[in-house]
Amino acid sequence: MSSPFAARTSVEAVEEGMLLAPKFDAHGLIPVVTTDAATGEVLMHAYMNEVALLKTLETGEAHYYSRSRQQLWHKGATSGLVQTVQQLLIDDDQDCLLMKVKVFGSGASCHVGYRSCFYRQISPGDEGVEVNRPIALTFTEKTKTFDPATVYGGAPNPTQL
Amino acid sequence: MSSPFAARTSVEAVEEGMLLAPKFDAHGLIPVVTTDAATGEVLMHAYMNEVALLKTLETGEAHYYSRSRQQLWHKGATSGLVQTVQQLLIDDDQDCLLMKVKVFGSGASCHVGYRSCFYRQISPGDEGVEVNRPIALTFTEKTKTFDPATVYGGAPNPTQL
Repeated sequence: MSSPFAARTSVEAVEEGMLLAPKFDAHGLIPVVTTDAATGEVLMHAYMNEVALLKTLETGEAHYYSRSRQQLWHKGATSGLVQTVQQLLIDDDQDCLLMKVKVFGSGASCHVGYRSCFYRQISPGDEGVEVNRPIALTFTEKTKTFDPATVYGGAPNPTQL
Repeated sequence: MSSPFAARTSVEAVEEGMLLAPKFDAHGLIPVVTTDAATGEVLMHAYMNEVALLKTLETGEAHYYSRSRQQLWHKGATSGLVQTVQQLLIDDDQDCLLMKVKVFGSGASCHVGYRSCFYRQISPGDEGVEVNRPIALTFTEKTKTFDPATVYGGAPNPTQL
Protein backbone atom coordinates (compact mmCIF):
# COMPACT_ATOMS: atom_id res chain seq x y z
CA MET A 1 0.00 0.00 0.00
CA SER A 2 1.39 3.42 -0.82
CA SER A 3 1.47 5.79 2.11
CA PRO A 4 3.00 9.12 3.10
CA PHE A 5 5.34 7.41 5.59
CA ALA A 6 9.03 7.27 4.69
CA ALA A 7 10.91 3.98 4.60
CA ARG A 8 13.11 3.16 7.60
CA THR A 9 16.35 2.85 5.68
CA SER A 10 18.98 3.73 8.30
CA VAL A 11 19.31 4.45 12.01
CA GLU A 12 20.59 7.92 11.20
CA ALA A 13 17.60 8.74 8.97
CA VAL A 14 15.18 7.50 11.63
CA GLU A 15 16.84 9.31 14.54
CA GLU A 16 18.09 12.51 12.96
CA GLY A 17 16.06 12.75 9.77
CA MET A 18 13.35 15.21 8.80
CA LEU A 19 10.79 12.69 7.49
CA LEU A 20 8.10 10.81 9.38
CA ALA A 21 8.94 7.08 9.31
CA PRO A 22 6.89 5.55 12.13
CA LYS A 23 7.41 1.98 13.27
CA PHE A 24 4.18 0.04 13.76
CA ASP A 25 4.49 -3.13 15.84
CA ALA A 26 3.57 -6.69 14.85
CA HIS A 27 -0.10 -5.78 15.38
CA GLY A 28 0.20 -2.65 13.21
CA LEU A 29 0.07 -0.35 16.25
CA ILE A 30 2.16 2.50 17.66
CA PRO A 31 1.76 3.71 21.27
CA VAL A 32 0.60 7.28 21.90
CA VAL A 33 1.12 9.32 25.07
CA THR A 34 -1.53 12.04 25.29
CA THR A 35 -0.98 15.13 27.44
CA ASP A 36 -3.02 18.23 28.21
CA ALA A 37 -1.36 20.91 26.08
CA ALA A 38 -2.10 23.61 28.65
CA THR A 39 -0.91 21.89 31.83
CA GLY A 40 1.40 19.17 30.50
CA GLU A 41 -0.47 16.56 32.54
CA VAL A 42 -0.30 13.04 31.10
CA LEU A 43 -3.93 12.13 30.37
CA MET A 44 -3.81 8.71 28.75
CA HIS A 45 -1.77 6.10 26.91
CA ALA A 46 -3.32 4.42 23.88
CA TYR A 47 -2.50 3.14 20.40
CA MET A 48 -2.91 4.23 16.80
CA ASN A 49 -2.75 2.18 13.65
CA GLU A 50 -1.82 3.70 10.30
CA VAL A 51 -5.40 4.75 9.55
CA ALA A 52 -5.85 6.39 12.96
CA LEU A 53 -2.62 8.36 12.61
CA LEU A 54 -3.57 9.64 9.17
CA LYS A 55 -7.10 10.50 10.36
CA THR A 56 -5.61 12.43 13.27
CA LEU A 57 -3.32 14.36 10.95
CA GLU A 58 -6.11 15.06 8.45
CA THR A 59 -8.77 16.16 10.95
CA GLY A 60 -6.72 17.61 13.82
CA GLU A 61 -8.79 15.52 16.22
CA ALA A 62 -7.39 12.51 18.10
CA HIS A 63 -8.19 9.16 16.55
CA TYR A 64 -6.91 5.97 18.15
CA TYR A 65 -7.26 2.27 17.46
CA SER A 66 -9.33 0.57 20.14
CA ARG A 67 -7.77 -2.78 20.96
CA SER A 68 -10.79 -3.93 22.98
CA ARG A 69 -13.30 -3.01 20.25
CA GLN A 70 -10.82 -3.70 17.44
CA GLN A 71 -11.82 -0.65 15.47
CA LEU A 72 -10.95 2.97 14.71
CA TRP A 73 -11.78 5.11 17.74
CA HIS A 74 -12.60 8.79 17.33
CA LYS A 75 -12.01 9.95 20.90
CA GLY A 76 -15.07 11.79 22.17
CA ALA A 77 -17.49 10.39 19.57
CA THR A 78 -19.58 8.91 22.41
CA SER A 79 -18.60 11.06 25.40
CA GLY A 80 -18.23 14.40 23.64
CA LEU A 81 -14.75 14.71 25.18
CA VAL A 82 -13.10 15.35 21.81
CA GLN A 83 -9.34 16.00 21.85
CA THR A 84 -8.03 18.70 19.51
CA VAL A 85 -4.39 18.18 18.63
CA GLN A 86 -2.11 21.11 19.45
CA GLN A 87 1.19 19.37 18.80
CA LEU A 88 2.20 15.86 17.71
CA LEU A 89 5.74 14.66 18.35
CA ILE A 90 7.58 11.43 17.65
CA ASP A 91 10.45 9.90 19.57
CA ASP A 92 14.04 9.13 18.60
CA ASP A 93 13.48 5.71 17.01
CA GLN A 94 10.01 6.73 15.79
CA ASP A 95 8.11 3.97 17.58
CA CYS A 96 6.09 6.19 19.94
CA LEU A 97 4.02 9.37 19.59
CA LEU A 98 3.50 12.23 22.05
CA MET A 99 0.27 14.14 21.40
CA LYS A 100 -0.51 17.41 23.18
CA VAL A 101 -4.25 18.09 23.10
CA LYS A 102 -6.98 20.43 24.20
CA VAL A 103 -9.90 18.46 25.63
CA PHE A 104 -13.41 19.68 24.94
CA GLY A 105 -15.73 20.41 27.85
CA SER A 106 -14.80 19.13 31.30
CA GLY A 107 -11.24 18.39 30.23
CA ALA A 108 -11.49 14.74 31.26
CA SER A 109 -10.03 11.92 29.17
CA CYS A 110 -10.52 8.79 31.30
CA HIS A 111 -13.47 6.46 30.74
CA VAL A 112 -13.72 5.85 34.50
CA GLY A 113 -14.61 9.53 34.97
CA TYR A 114 -11.31 10.98 36.13
CA ARG A 115 -9.41 13.77 34.38
CA SER A 116 -6.35 11.61 33.75
CA CYS A 117 -6.23 7.83 33.48
CA PHE A 118 -3.33 7.99 35.95
CA TYR A 119 -5.35 8.71 39.10
CA ARG A 120 -3.63 6.24 41.42
CA GLN A 121 -0.06 6.08 42.64
CA ILE A 122 1.86 3.06 43.78
CA SER A 123 2.55 3.32 47.50
CA PRO A 124 4.58 0.36 48.74
CA GLY A 125 4.96 1.93 52.20
CA ASP A 126 7.93 1.98 54.54
CA GLU A 127 8.17 -1.79 54.72
CA GLY A 128 9.00 -1.98 51.04
CA VAL A 129 8.17 -4.60 48.46
CA GLU A 130 8.05 -8.27 49.39
CA VAL A 131 6.79 -11.37 47.69
CA ASN A 132 3.23 -12.22 48.74
CA ARG A 133 2.60 -8.83 50.33
CA PRO A 134 0.20 -6.87 48.07
CA ILE A 135 1.31 -3.39 47.01
CA ALA A 136 -1.08 -0.57 47.88
CA LEU A 137 -2.40 2.12 45.56
CA THR A 138 -3.61 5.52 46.73
CA PHE A 139 -5.84 7.89 44.78
CA THR A 140 -4.32 11.16 43.57
CA GLU A 141 -7.62 12.42 42.13
CA LYS A 142 -10.26 12.49 44.82
CA THR A 143 -13.39 13.06 42.75
CA LYS A 144 -14.56 12.13 39.29
CA THR A 145 -14.96 14.86 36.69
CA PHE A 146 -17.99 13.21 35.11
CA ASP A 147 -20.34 10.29 35.74
CA PRO A 148 -19.43 7.51 33.29
CA ALA A 149 -22.87 5.87 33.61
CA THR A 150 -24.51 9.06 32.33
CA VAL A 151 -21.93 9.77 29.64
CA TYR A 152 -21.46 6.27 28.24
CA GLY A 153 -24.85 4.73 29.07
CA GLY A 154 -24.80 1.02 28.43
CA ALA A 155 -21.65 1.01 26.28
CA PRO A 156 -19.34 -1.90 27.17
CA ASN A 157 -16.42 -1.11 29.45
CA PRO A 158 -13.14 -1.26 27.48
CA THR A 159 -11.07 -2.57 30.40
CA GLN A 160 -9.96 -6.17 29.85
CA LEU A 161 -8.79 -8.50 32.59
CA MET B 1 5.75 -17.75 40.78
CA SER B 2 4.47 -15.92 43.82
CA SER B 3 4.60 -12.15 43.55
CA PRO B 4 3.32 -9.07 45.33
CA PHE B 5 0.93 -8.27 42.46
CA ALA B 6 -2.78 -8.78 43.08
CA ALA B 7 -4.87 -10.99 40.80
CA ARG B 8 -7.02 -9.21 38.20
CA THR B 9 -10.34 -10.62 39.39
CA SER B 10 -12.83 -7.94 38.28
CA VAL B 11 -13.00 -4.74 36.27
CA GLU B 12 -14.08 -2.86 39.40
CA ALA B 13 -11.10 -4.12 41.43
CA VAL B 14 -8.70 -3.21 38.62
CA GLU B 15 -10.15 0.27 37.98
CA GLU B 16 -11.23 1.39 41.43
CA GLY B 17 -9.28 -0.90 43.76
CA MET B 18 -6.44 -0.10 46.12
CA LEU B 19 -4.10 -2.93 45.11
CA LEU B 20 -1.49 -3.03 42.38
CA ALA B 21 -2.57 -5.58 39.75
CA PRO B 22 -0.53 -4.73 36.65
CA LYS B 23 -1.25 -6.31 33.29
CA PHE B 24 1.85 -7.50 31.46
CA ASP B 25 1.39 -8.15 27.73
CA ALA B 26 2.04 -11.35 25.80
CA HIS B 27 5.78 -10.58 26.00
CA GLY B 28 5.62 -9.98 29.76
CA LEU B 29 5.98 -6.22 29.34
CA ILE B 30 4.13 -3.11 30.50
CA PRO B 31 4.72 0.32 28.87
CA VAL B 32 6.13 3.15 31.00
CA VAL B 33 5.84 6.88 30.32
CA THR B 34 8.66 8.73 32.07
CA THR B 35 8.39 12.44 32.84
CA ASP B 36 10.64 14.99 34.51
CA ALA B 37 9.10 15.38 37.97
CA ALA B 38 10.08 19.05 38.15
CA THR B 39 8.87 20.25 34.74
CA GLY B 40 6.34 17.58 33.74
CA GLU B 41 8.11 17.16 30.39
CA VAL B 42 7.67 13.71 28.84
CA LEU B 43 11.21 12.32 28.58
CA MET B 44 10.81 8.82 27.21
CA HIS B 45 8.56 5.82 26.63
CA ALA B 46 9.91 2.37 27.47
CA TYR B 47 8.91 -0.98 28.93
CA MET B 48 9.29 -2.88 32.20
CA ASN B 49 8.91 -6.55 32.88
CA GLU B 50 7.99 -7.88 36.33
CA VAL B 51 11.60 -7.94 37.49
CA ALA B 52 12.25 -4.37 36.31
CA LEU B 53 9.14 -3.07 38.08
CA LEU B 54 10.09 -4.76 41.35
CA LYS B 55 13.70 -3.54 41.05
CA THR B 56 12.42 -0.01 40.49
CA LEU B 57 10.19 -0.21 43.57
CA GLU B 58 12.94 -1.74 45.71
CA THR B 59 15.73 0.66 44.73
CA GLY B 60 13.88 3.87 43.86
CA GLU B 61 15.87 4.05 40.62
CA ALA B 62 14.32 3.46 37.20
CA HIS B 63 14.87 -0.03 35.80
CA TYR B 64 13.43 -0.97 32.42
CA TYR B 65 13.51 -4.02 30.19
CA SER B 66 15.54 -3.38 27.06
CA ARG B 67 13.77 -4.97 24.10
CA SER B 68 16.78 -4.51 21.80
CA ARG B 69 19.27 -5.99 24.27
CA GLN B 70 16.68 -8.36 25.77
CA GLN B 71 17.82 -7.75 29.33
CA LEU B 72 17.16 -5.77 32.49
CA TRP B 73 18.21 -2.16 31.94
CA HIS B 74 19.26 0.00 34.87
CA LYS B 75 18.87 3.42 33.28
CA GLY B 76 22.07 5.39 33.64
CA ALA B 77 24.32 2.40 34.34
CA THR B 78 26.38 3.31 31.26
CA SER B 79 25.63 7.01 30.80
CA GLY B 80 25.44 8.05 34.44
CA LEU B 81 22.02 9.60 33.72
CA VAL B 82 20.32 7.70 36.55
CA GLN B 83 16.61 8.42 37.09
CA THR B 84 15.43 8.65 40.71
CA VAL B 85 11.72 7.90 41.04
CA GLN B 86 9.68 10.66 42.64
CA GLN B 87 6.23 9.21 41.93
CA LEU B 88 4.98 6.09 40.16
CA LEU B 89 1.38 5.96 38.94
CA ILE B 90 -0.69 3.35 37.14
CA ASP B 91 -3.59 3.89 34.77
CA ASP B 92 -7.26 2.89 34.98
CA ASP B 93 -6.97 -0.64 33.57
CA GLN B 94 -3.46 -1.05 35.05
CA ASP B 95 -1.71 -1.77 31.77
CA CYS B 96 0.53 1.33 31.71
CA LEU B 97 2.78 3.13 34.21
CA LEU B 98 3.58 6.83 34.58
CA MET B 99 6.89 7.47 36.31
CA LYS B 100 7.95 10.92 37.44
CA VAL B 101 11.71 11.09 37.90
CA LYS B 102 14.61 13.30 38.77
CA VAL B 103 17.44 12.83 36.27
CA PHE B 104 21.01 12.92 37.53
CA GLY B 105 23.47 15.36 35.99
CA SER B 106 22.56 17.06 32.72
CA GLY B 107 18.92 16.01 32.99
CA ALA B 108 18.95 14.26 29.65
CA SER B 109 17.24 10.90 29.06
CA CYS B 110 17.59 10.27 25.32
CA HIS B 111 20.36 8.08 23.92
CA VAL B 112 20.68 10.38 20.88
CA GLY B 113 21.83 13.17 23.21
CA TYR B 114 18.67 15.23 23.56
CA ARG B 115 16.92 15.99 26.85
CA SER B 116 13.68 14.27 25.81
CA CYS B 117 13.30 11.48 23.25
CA PHE B 118 10.50 13.57 21.74
CA TYR B 119 12.65 16.22 20.05
CA ARG B 120 10.84 16.32 16.70
CA GLN B 121 7.30 17.34 15.86
CA ILE B 122 5.22 16.22 12.93
CA SER B 123 4.64 19.14 10.58
CA PRO B 124 2.46 18.16 7.63
CA GLY B 125 2.26 21.76 6.42
CA ASP B 126 -0.61 23.68 4.91
CA GLU B 127 -1.12 21.23 2.07
CA GLY B 128 -2.07 18.50 4.51
CA VAL B 129 -1.48 14.78 4.34
CA GLU B 130 -1.57 12.94 1.05
CA VAL B 131 -0.57 9.50 -0.09
CA ASN B 132 2.96 9.44 -1.53
CA ARG B 133 3.86 12.88 -0.16
CA PRO B 134 6.31 12.42 2.72
CA ILE B 135 5.43 14.09 6.02
CA ALA B 136 8.01 16.50 7.40
CA LEU B 137 9.45 16.59 10.90
CA THR B 138 10.91 19.68 12.55
CA PHE B 139 13.23 19.74 15.53
CA THR B 140 11.90 21.21 18.77
CA GLU B 141 15.24 20.82 20.58
CA LYS B 142 17.98 22.60 18.70
CA THR B 143 21.06 21.32 20.46
CA LYS B 144 22.05 18.09 22.14
CA THR B 145 22.57 18.03 25.89
CA PHE B 146 25.44 15.58 25.69
CA ASP B 147 27.60 13.86 23.09
CA PRO B 148 26.44 10.24 22.77
CA ALA B 149 29.78 9.13 21.25
CA THR B 150 31.59 10.27 24.39
CA VAL B 151 28.99 8.97 26.84
CA TYR B 152 28.24 5.60 25.27
CA GLY B 153 31.52 4.95 23.47
CA GLY B 154 31.22 1.91 21.24
CA ALA B 155 28.01 0.54 22.80
CA PRO B 156 25.54 -0.65 20.14
CA ASN B 157 22.74 1.77 19.22
CA PRO B 158 19.41 0.45 20.59
CA THR B 159 17.33 1.79 17.69
CA GLN B 160 16.00 -0.98 15.48
CA LEU B 161 14.75 -0.53 11.92
